[in-house]
Formats: sequence, C-alpha cells, structure tokens
Amino acid sequence: MGDEFSVVGRSVPRIDSIDKVTGRAKFAPDLKVEGMLHARILRSPYAHAKVIKIDTSRAEKIPGIRAIVTIEEVPKVIEYWFFLRTEKKQRKMFLRDNVVRFIGDPVLAVAADDEETAEEALSLIDVEYEQLPALFEPVDAMKESEVRIHERGNIAFHVVKQYGDIEQGFKDADYIVENRYVTSKQKHASIEPIGTCIADYDPGGRLTIYSSTQLPHWSRMYLAGALGLPNNKVRVIKPYTGGAFGGRCGLVHGLEIMSSALSMQTYRPIRMSFTREEDFTATETRHPITIEMKTGVTKDGILTANSVKLISDVGGYGTHYIGVIADCLSTGVGLYRCPHVNFEATAVYTNKSMSGAFRGYGNPQMNFAQESQMDIIADKLGIDPVEFRLENYRGLGEIDPVFDDEIRSEGLKECLKKGAESIGWKEKRAGNRPEGTKKRGVGMSIMLHGSGAAKGLPDPASATVMVNADGSVNLVTAAADDGQGNRTVLAQIAAEELGIGFEQISVSDTDTDTTPLDGGTHGSRQTYCGGLAVKKAAADAKRKILGFASQELNVDEGQLCIKDGVVFNVKDQTTNISVSDLMRKTQIENMSVCEQTIGVATGVAPAMPGYFGANFAEVEVDTKTGKVRVLKLTAAFDVGKAINPAQVEGQIIGGSVMGIGWALTEELLLEDGKILNNNFADYKMLGAGDIPELESIIVESNEPTGPFGAKGVGEGGMVAVASAIANAIYNAIGIRMKELCITPEKILDALRKW
Amino acid sequence: MGDEFSVVGRSVPRIDSIDKVTGRAKFAPDLKVEGMLHARILRSPYAHAKVIKIDTSRAEKIPGIRAIVTIEEVPKVIEYWFFLRTEKKQRKMFLRDNVVRFIGDPVLAVAADDEETAEEALSLIDVEYEQLPALFEPVDAMKESEVRIHERGNIAFHVVKQYGDIEQGFKDADYIVENRYVTSKQKHASIEPIGTCIADYDPGGRLTIYSSTQLPHWSRMYLAGALGLPNNKVRVIKPYTGGAFGGRCGLVHGLEIMSSALSMQTYRPIRMSFTREEDFTATETRHPITIEMKTGVTKDGILTANSVKLISDVGGYGTHYIGVIADCLSTGVGLYRCPHVNFEATAVYTNKSMSGAFRGYGNPQMNFAQESQMDIIADKLGIDPVEFRLENYRGLGEIDPVFDDEIRSEGLKECLKKGAESIGWKEKRAGNRPEGTKKRGVGMSIMLHGSGAAKGLPDPASATVMVNADGSVNLVTAAADDGQGNRTVLAQIAAEELGIGFEQISVSDTDTDTTPLDGGTHGSRQTYCGGLAVKKAAADAKRKILGFASQELNVDEGQLCIKDGVVFNVKDQTTNISVSDLMRKTQIENMSVCEQTIGVATGVAPAMPGYFGANFAEVEVDTKTGKVRVLKLTAAFDVGKAINPAQVEGQIIGGSVMGIGWALTEELLLEDGKILNNNFADYKMLGAGDIPELESIIVESNEPTGPFGAKGVGEGGMVAVASAIANAIYNAIGIRMKELCITPEKILDALRKW
Repeated sequence: MGDEFSVVGRSVPRIDSIDKVTGRAKFAPDLKVEGMLHARILRSPYAHAKVIKIDTSRAEKIPGIRAIVTIEEVPKVIEYWFFLRTEKKQRKMFLRDNVVRFIGDPVLAVAADDEETAEEALSLIDVEYEQLPALFEPVDAMKESEVRIHERGNIAFHVVKQYGDIEQGFKDADYIVENRYVTSKQKHASIEPIGTCIADYDPGGRLTIYSSTQLPHWSRMYLAGALGLPNNKVRVIKPYTGGAFGGRCGLVHGLEIMSSALSMQTYRPIRMSFTREEDFTATETRHPITIEMKTGVTKDGILTANSVKLISDVGGYGTHYIGVIADCLSTGVGLYRCPHVNFEATAVYTNKSMSGAFRGYGNPQMNFAQESQMDIIADKLGIDPVEFRLENYRGLGEIDPVFDDEIRSEGLKECLKKGAESIGWKEKRAGNRPEGTKKRGVGMSIMLHGSGAAKGLPDPASATVMVNADGSVNLVTAAADDGQGNRTVLAQIAAEELGIGFEQISVSDTDTDTTPLDGGTHGSRQTYCGGLAVKKAAADAKRKILGFASQELNVDEGQLCIKDGVVFNVKDQTTNISVSDLMRKTQIENMSVCEQTIGVATGVAPAMPGYFGANFAEVEVDTKTGKVRVLKLTAAFDVGKAINPAQVEGQIIGGSVMGIGWALTEELLLEDGKILNNNFADYKMLGAGDIPELESIIVESNEPTGPFGAKGVGEGGMVAVASAIANAIYNAIGIRMKELCITPEKILDALRKW
Repeated sequence: MGDEFSVVGRSVPRIDSIDKVTGRAKFAPDLKVEGMLHARILRSPYAHAKVIKIDTSRAEKIPGIRAIVTIEEVPKVIEYWFFLRTEKKQRKMFLRDNVVRFIGDPVLAVAADDEETAEEALSLIDVEYEQLPALFEPVDAMKESEVRIHERGNIAFHVVKQYGDIEQGFKDADYIVENRYVTSKQKHASIEPIGTCIADYDPGGRLTIYSSTQLPHWSRMYLAGALGLPNNKVRVIKPYTGGAFGGRCGLVHGLEIMSSALSMQTYRPIRMSFTREEDFTATETRHPITIEMKTGVTKDGILTANSVKLISDVGGYGTHYIGVIADCLSTGVGLYRCPHVNFEATAVYTNKSMSGAFRGYGNPQMNFAQESQMDIIADKLGIDPVEFRLENYRGLGEIDPVFDDEIRSEGLKECLKKGAESIGWKEKRAGNRPEGTKKRGVGMSIMLHGSGAAKGLPDPASATVMVNADGSVNLVTAAADDGQGNRTVLAQIAAEELGIGFEQISVSDTDTDTTPLDGGTHGSRQTYCGGLAVKKAAADAKRKILGFASQELNVDEGQLCIKDGVVFNVKDQTTNISVSDLMRKTQIENMSVCEQTIGVATGVAPAMPGYFGANFAEVEVDTKTGKVRVLKLTAAFDVGKAINPAQVEGQIIGGSVMGIGWALTEELLLEDGKILNNNFADYKMLGAGDIPELESIIVESNEPTGPFGAKGVGEGGMVAVASAIANAIYNAIGIRMKELCITPEKILDALRKW
C-alpha cells in the first residue's frame, strides 16, 4: 500500500525536532512578556470549608504587590459544550463562591513584581475558614446526608441507558458472571507541568493568552464568554507543549481565568506558573470509577446481557464527567456485540481534587472491567480468550449502537493474529512456567476507541493552504501539537495531496488570531479530523493549480496530475510544468493575475471511525514479594493508515508505558483529602529501567472516510494495557486482581486470602 | 453619500491607537529575542575605493566577538521586480564586490555579545583601501571617462519615450518655454530610524526576520532567493513601524542580508540597528533629479508639445530608479493632455549614498518642474493658472497614455474650486501686498498620482476573513501598516461589507507565515488594492453567511441583507437572525456542520486609478533675509471616497508638512560625498512651530473600481507642495525659484541677480 504514496507512510523526522533538541523550542514556562507580573494562588488547606473572612491588609503593605483577586471576584466561566448539551442551561466550568471543596482549591491570587514577593504576600494573608464535614468516598456522598458539596447536591450527573431487554438477556444466558472493578486516580504527569500561562489584557480591550491548552479556539470562547469580550478581542497563542494527555483539555482550574482577572485589574501581563506540587494537587486527574458488571453468556460463548453500574468520582468540581461516562458506554461496553445492555452511571462530587479529561477518557476504566470480565468468562467457559473476543467483538460492517454508524474499517483480526504470534500466545498460555516464587503468565485484551468527537461534540476542523510563488507552502492550522507530532503528520498530508515534497511545507504556529476554527487536540482526532481538513484544503489548492496549469499547458484539467512538484499530462508526460514555475507565473509574472493559490477547508468530519487494538502481556509475579514485572508488552493497532509509522509507534509505545504505570504503580494516594504523593519521588512513574520489551505492531485497514485511509491512535495505546496485565497475572498465579493499581501489597494480600 | 454606510466614511479611532499611546506597541528597536547577538557594520570612509586587504585578527581576539562577515561573503540579493522587467537578466539589488562606492558603504559586519563589543571590534579591524577617483555629479559621471563606478559603466538606465511628433508639436506652438529644474536629496527621516532588524536562522533551516519592511512578502522572496531557501523556510514578521515613506520599500541596504549571513554563521539571532547617523548616511534618499523641460503652447493656452530630458542621480547603487523614472513620465508629465511628448531619462551612478523609493516616487520631482513650467506659461499668456490647468489637465473619461486606461473618477475641478476659495485665490492673486520687505503671494499647483502599481509591477493583494462563532471577525492580511492606519481602514471595509460593527473586527499581525500574499505597502495602494481584497474576502464570507441564513430563515438568499449584525428579509424585516446566533448554530450547535465561515480573496486590482489633488499656498518672503514663510497651505484631494476622513486628513497634512520641508529646508548636504547634516540638528525638518495654517479638503468622486468608491491618497499630499510654494514665491517677489530646496541664501542670491 505504501508504494502508491510519496510522503504519506514515511517516517519523516518531526518538523520541530531540531528546535526541540537544540532547546530553541519555547514552551509556556520559557515565555517572557515585557513588564509581566508574577502571580501565585493561595489554596485551601481544608477539604471542605466556608471562607468567612479574608484579610489582605498585611499583604497589601509589601512593596511590589500589584493586585489581589479573590475567587469570588473571578468571572464565571461557562463551558460551551455543556451549555449546548443541556439546552442552554448554563453549567459552570469553574465555580466560585465562598466555599472551598478540596485541599488546594483556589481562594485568591496575588500578582507581584516577582514570584518571591507574591509567595511572601500569600503567607501574610489571613483567611478565616469555617470547616465543613468533608466527603471523600462517592458512596458516602451519594447518601442523602446533610453534607452538600454543591448546593444542588452531590450528584453531578446520573444516567440510565437501556438497549434491548436486560431481563430477557439474563434469561437467555447459561452463565452469569458478576464482578466489581475499581480504578484509581491517575495523574497526567506530563513533562511540562500543566499550569503555566501568561494573560495580557491591554488597555485597548484585547486579552492575549499564552497557554498550552489543547483547545485554543474553545479556550478563547470560554474566556471571551467569561470576560464579556467578543471572540475577536481574545487571542490564544499556544507555544510548544510538553505533553497534555487531556490535562490541558480546556482551561486549567484557576489558571487562565485568574490570570486574566489580575491582568484586567493591572493592565499588565500576568505570568502564573504552578509548581509540580500544585500540578499534582490542584489540577485534574483521571476519574476513579468503580464498576459493577453483570454479564450473561451462553455456554457457546455468546454474550446475551451486560449490566453495568458505575460510580465516577469527579472530585470537588466536575469537568468532562458526562463525556467520560459516555465513552465508558460507547467504546468500553460498545466494544462487544450484545443484544441486551443496561448501563447506569452516576458521577458524584467528593472533597477531592477534580477529575477530568485523561487519555482514553473513561475507556481505560471501562476496558479494565470489561476485559477482565471477558477473561473471567473465557476462563469459565474454557474458551481461548482470543477466540472468545473474535466471537463477540463488533467488527467490520456492523453498526455501533451508540454512534449509530457503520464500522467501515477494522483490522482487529490481524492485530490479534500478529499480537498472539509476537507474545508466543499458544505456547506460553499452555504453561511451561518457571519453578520457584517467580510465576509467569500471559494475558491479552482488546480495545476500540473513536477518532474524533463528531457524533458527540461540536468538532470543527479547518485549514488554509497558502501556496507560495516558488511552489512551497505555508499551511495554516490551529491543530494544536502537544508534543505528539500533529504538525508533522499534517504537513505530510498536505505534501502528499499537493504532490510536492515534505520539506516544502511549513506549518504555522497555533494562534487564534490567524488560524481557523479547530476543535482542538483531544479524542485522538487530529490525524483524522485535522488531517481531513488539511487534505481538503490542499485539494482545493490543487484544483486551482491544475486550473492554472490547464490554461498554461492547454490540457484538460482532468488529464493533469502533480507528482514530485511537477504538473504533467498523464497521457504525455513531456507536457509539463513545475509547480514552482507555474506559481511564479500566476503570482508574479502574469501581472494581470497576481493571485496566490490559497486552499481552504472547514467543517466536520463525516464520521468518527473507531480504531482497534490488541494488547498481549507477559508478566512475572514474584509470589514472595508480590512484585509484578512485565516482561513483554505487545500492542497491535489498526490505525487505518500510518501516515508517519515512527510517530504511530511513538504513540503506541507511550501508551504502553502509561498503561503499565496505571496498572502497577501510578496512583494518587489521599489521606483525608490530602494528596500524599504530589511529586515525582513519591508518585511512581515508570523509569527507563522499568520498561519491558515493548513491541508495537501497525495494522492498516484503510478507513474509507479517512485522509489516505488514516484514523486515530493517540489515546488507544493506553486503554487496554491494565486489563491485559491483570489477565496475565491471573494466568501466572490464578488470582484475579480487580482493583487498580496492582501493588505488591495487593498481590500479597490476595495471595494470603487465596 | 456618507449616509448609506455604517462604518465607512466615519473617523473611527485607529485600531492600534491605545497600544501606541500607552507605549505597548512594539517597534523593531523594542524587540528582543533570547540569545541574540548584536551586530555593527564597518563602513567605508571613502567615496570610492578598492578594498585591498582586511585584517580582522586583532578584533577576533576580543572576548565576545562571535562572527564577522565581509561584504564579499554576503549572498547576492536579486530583486524580483527588476528580474521580471528585464527578461530574467538578473540585476542585483545589493552588489557586493571589493569596491566601496559611497561614504558609508558596508565593508563588513561584526556580531558580538553586545553592541559595545561589536563597536570596539570595528575599531580594531584594519582595512587597506586603494582610493579611486570619485564622481559626485551625474554630468561628470555621464562623461565617458576612465572612472567607472560599476563595471558596466556609470549609466544605470537610459530610456527614450516618444508620443506623437515632437517636431510637429513645437511647430504648432505659438510660444515655447524652456527651463531647467533641479531637485534635491531628501531623506525620509521617519521617527523610527530605517535600519533595525533581527535575523534568526535556526538549525532546522528556517530564517525568521523581524523587520519593518513595507514589503513583507517581497522581502521574504528576496531573502529566500539570496540565501537559497524555499519561501516557506523564510518568515518575515513586521512589527509596528514608525513611518516608512518608501525608505523601507524592499530590503534596507546591508541590514537584513548581512544580519542573516551572520545568523547563518552563528545559529544565533542577530540584532542589527543603525544609528540615526547611519540612517542618514547609508540608507536610501529621494532621487535628486535635474529636469530640462521645453514646452510648446498656443496663444490660447493649449499645450502642443512637451520635451523632457532628465538626469536622475541614483548614488553608488541603484534601487527603484526605473520605477521612479516611469512615474516622472506617467503621473508627472502625464498629468496634462499634450499631443506630442518626448521623454528622455538617464539614471546615473555617482559616489554618493543611494537614492531609492520615496513618497511620490519621482512624481514630486517632475511635478516641481511641470507645475513651475505651467505657472510660467500661464504668466506669459496672462491666463489665470487655475484656468490654465482646467484647460489642459487630463480628466474624467480620458485615457492615460502610459497606463492605457480610462480615468473613471475625477474630482479635480471641485478640488480647484474649494482650494481657491480656501486660500482666497481671486482676492490675493490680484495684489494687496503689504509694504516693507515682507512680500506676500499665492501660488497653486495640481497633481495626479496612481493608486497601486497594477500596471507596472506585480501587485497582488489578498485577505482572509474568519467569522467567529459569536459573529466577530479576525481579518488576516499582510497589508503592512507603517503608521498611516491601513489596518483601521481595512477593518472598516470588512465591517461595512459584512454589515457588522467596527469593534467586531480584529486585524492580524503581519507575518508571512500566516498572512496571504500581498504586494506590500507602497504606491498609495493599500486602501485601494488591499481594500479591494478585504472587501472581496468579506463578500465571500457574507455570501456564505447569507447561504446559512437562507436555510435557517427559509428565505431566498437574494432577499437577505445584513445590517448592524442582523440578517433579515428585506421584504419582511421581522424575519431575521443575528449573525452571532447564526454563526453559533453553524459553527457549534449544528454538530453536523461545524463550519467556520471563512472568506478568501486574492488577485490583482482591476485598475490603478489616479487620485487628483490641488495645492494652494500663501507665502511671505522677507526680501531682507530671504526667508520664506508659508502662511497657509490648502490641500484639496479627490480620494474617491474617504473610508476614514480623519486618516485621510492625516495623510494630507503629513504630506503638506513633508512637502514644505522639501521645498524650503530639507536637503542632505554633501561635501566630497560626505553627508554634512546626518542628524536632526543639522537636517532641518519642520518643527511644530514652523507649521503654517494647513487646510485639508476631501473631495469624493466615487471611483467605480474602488472599495466603496475609494482610491489612494498616501503619497499625494507631498507631491505638489514645492511647486505651489515656488509659484507663490514668484507671485510674491516676481522671482522664479527653479532649484530646491529654496533656502534664504538662494532667495537673496536671486534677488541680487534680479
């Protein structure tokens, strides 16, 4: 398949690689704006309290203090998406009143000439709190006690969805399996801490925000709405970004809006930068979700019923909890054909730091339950887990019941075949385990994730392709690159469509003043949605190029083709003109034309195709220490078409590592609402030495709606890792770990109980 | 006429006024790029010399010296325009060999950690020169002596153009008037010195240039060509600019290219900033042109023949000399209907600082000759000068012989009428002059100048109009604003066309990475050419808005109109929807659309309409001191339609002041090629106290090809001031001053000779 393409399918180096390795790439924390002040946030030491009185008089006397804004004074931010979903009932993204709801909740922010002075001021501000009883467990919060975290109660969201007749489904079952799964509070822990921005409100009434948001255009809209400014008076500039993973999927709690409020008071640029500790303590995390799953199956291994009850812990303020629950259903439960499904979900406030968007967006949590459950059933039925999946997964030509859309591309069978070969499934599954305390086992799991959000959220993508007078191109797009390499992939797509070299494409910075509307970088959407927009814009430019060439060569447009920067007659390749000669003529030499060739595209993608993946893990469990070592993890992914195979592998490998971390070591530990491990020493992520043999396998199924057949991959690598590892642990020691993360203590505990 | 418009025709405050008055606007000299080095140029102390040897060894030993580049090592810059005009014979814009051709000619540049170190290094570099005989007068240079400033000789350009039969023309004449006029070497002297840039070549192979160029896209092309980079690898960012007047019409001699060469050596950003003295000494000036004009006229005051011989002094290197000569013919001589014209022009190298583009671009020089000549003839024939012009000028419906295009709008008659009224022409012309040594007189002149360059040069203009989800707009354009207020006018045009408020439009920064191809800001072109592109792009967006509204309101597109941000059915205004509601629906709420409304336009304007003006001056000449005081200057201009009347007046008043300066005080004085007055103390510009009563009158003739009837005005205010003043001096004291500038010494000298 690769041979038909010139640029697509090649692992060209990243467009920004040299900037990054030479340190020239500027990230938000590197930015300086002349005259900027430095802001720090005073945060609540209590998990739940009422602010009775704030005395800033001592702080105000310090030289260099420029402004103080309390959380109650900060303008309200409305999230458009929810605003739309709930028929104009405004839900606040960022609540502010006189109550603090988690340890680290912002109380006020101070701007000063330097960070040290701001810090000193914080220590001189006296806040009188009235402590309120705190609720840390969703089940406690769900009880209708007198403790209300929000006025309207502790239930953020409740939904019941039913497909078919669940009672009938269980009647049809030969076996019913029922289990409870618990997932943990994982932190994005990107290299660049989540919270740095500069807000610069000028006396002319324009606000410029430098922020590493994944959603530049939506962030502009949120801020404009909050501050009562028209969109054209807010400019969001996104610098290079050191990882996002959902942590920057909107505004960061308190960051941009408090900085803006301070800037509007002072007419000075405000730099606010969270410490790593603040990042861990006061920005969003993965939703810890507890899932009760009851599944019916025939003795032949056909699913008949699936009943899911989940409780999602959203923390003190909710963000993304509806979307996360929707994905639990759509890509988690929806992975399998099952005639009778019951799905009940409750999102509950607790006095903990907020949960929010995180790579996988509910899918990893549900996948851990669903794929553990499938393993349990396969084991019970004595069917090979791979065979059991092949029997039940929803594949090519089937209709996804949630998105009501056909699955048009699907390479899961190939993923399973190659993944099984890679791990040595048949042989290792059979046994042959070493003696002693170190037990080995293999496990597997599959996953499905959507490319984009077109069916669930407003999901625009746009691009402008400006062909220069020498045939080179400036691509203008707001498709924010968080470090994964979007801009490189989009440049490849533009080059391929135009028939010119990759080096001839430059990609604009991300700046809402000049880049057209884009739904942002989330939901594994940029290769698919952004790529489609770029391909369409390039096609628009190409049409114009061929129009000019048709006149110049006196050949019908339909007979013209562009390759390697040359437009030629497909029937007689000696009739040709280089794109650069043609563009010089039309843009400069022919003075009655002087027209730049500009292609534009904007709109929504026609679908949000699912991409499939299979993980195979081999683990070694030391029954003496409880330590689980992953020996090998194979991840086979059907990405439609790998525009840049090295980057696809990068996404898969990154996902594997993050998935192993979530399975075994990464969890925020709280005691009375206080996060105990708010740093990289105590919050254990995988180091280079912890990483096992990783194999990533790319399968190409050619998505017909995708750009050159591509669909997404970004989040997928993470989704099904924990379930594969848990299944492998079961294979190794016969114990089913249903709670993340799977620590040595839990293994030992389980071994003892066994 | 004004009432039909909502935004056009109103003197809205400038879009950047608050940024400028608060000092937030960043000009090139304000910019800092992290890690930047500072460069200084070593300049020739000789007017003509060969560089025999350069010894940099002492300089290289200073700590902090990072790079040295000699002028011979600097890549060659080819100017595209001339490249086209001369059928691919490459003319160098910026010559570099081992010869220096004027005092101040760059020999080498040094980059160091700071300016002081760079300066110190220059003092330690030993250059061995072989002095060559220098030529300062064009007439000397034209003699075929052995002294050759350039290898191919001292004639840069020679052209002869003939219309009709000049011999016949003189035969048809009753009178023949022959005079010689001399114009001077004026400096742009913008508030911000011409020469500051930062060149930043990164290891990834991209060059970013921060430069106040008037021609961002052409500058990108020049630099890309010189450095062997594709256009997409060069990015030109234009910051706020403190005046240009032609001085930034391309690359500044030595500035961007030497900075780029130093940056390519060091991979560090290079800041180069010329001192005011360097600005005066080593950047371009107005071409001093000497004009011999022989004119035939009937006794009834009809022109029969005009023979012009001019010599233009281009200095050591030529830029823009062909265009300047072309404008001497087209808008200077071409102002009048005359059946028989002979035009011979020679551009000559001398060992003086370069001449180049300067507001008016040859037209003021020729206007001084032509309009003095007309005054002389009128005087001879006893015809009122106003009547004489009315009889002979080329007006509405006539064909410009040079541009071969019809004059479609023309308000000169009204300019003359209102101007004459304003100055009290009839009364003051008649006499009634005070006794004593202070003699008063009035004089007048007219002018014609083109809007744009479409007939003579590649002249693209483009714009992108991005309508946001709340109905506000980001306008993306490369129409560089040099301080005159382009961006405000373009925002008004966009707002008017779209039917929304001015405040709802923001205009992008000028950055070749994101703004589409534009021919730059020169030739009085941005209101007309840039305005047309913006209007077309806005119309494109509007069409799309109406298309959406048609579906939403179920009303035929043709029946829909937008005003004050509301789309309504013209037949039933109660059927309506606000643009903001409509855009929110199409961009966000209707998730199957999610399309931003983007309008695009690119191409060349259909014409380059002339705008007309008349100046009336009243002067007082002190016959004892020779001092000329302008008492009042009225400038009446036909601008088609004043999009922003206050800004039009600003242009006219600025032109009046610059014109008075050129007439009376502004001239670079050279002695053996050395500029004696290279600072604001010695180069006398008008101060606030020197400025007479100025009246600017706007006449609107509604140019049918223009945006809302507009044409240009930028250069015009300057063009005919000196001629009006010289004519008024003649009226006052009966002495004809044919040489600029008209100093007291020259007046006294003339009085003595009289």
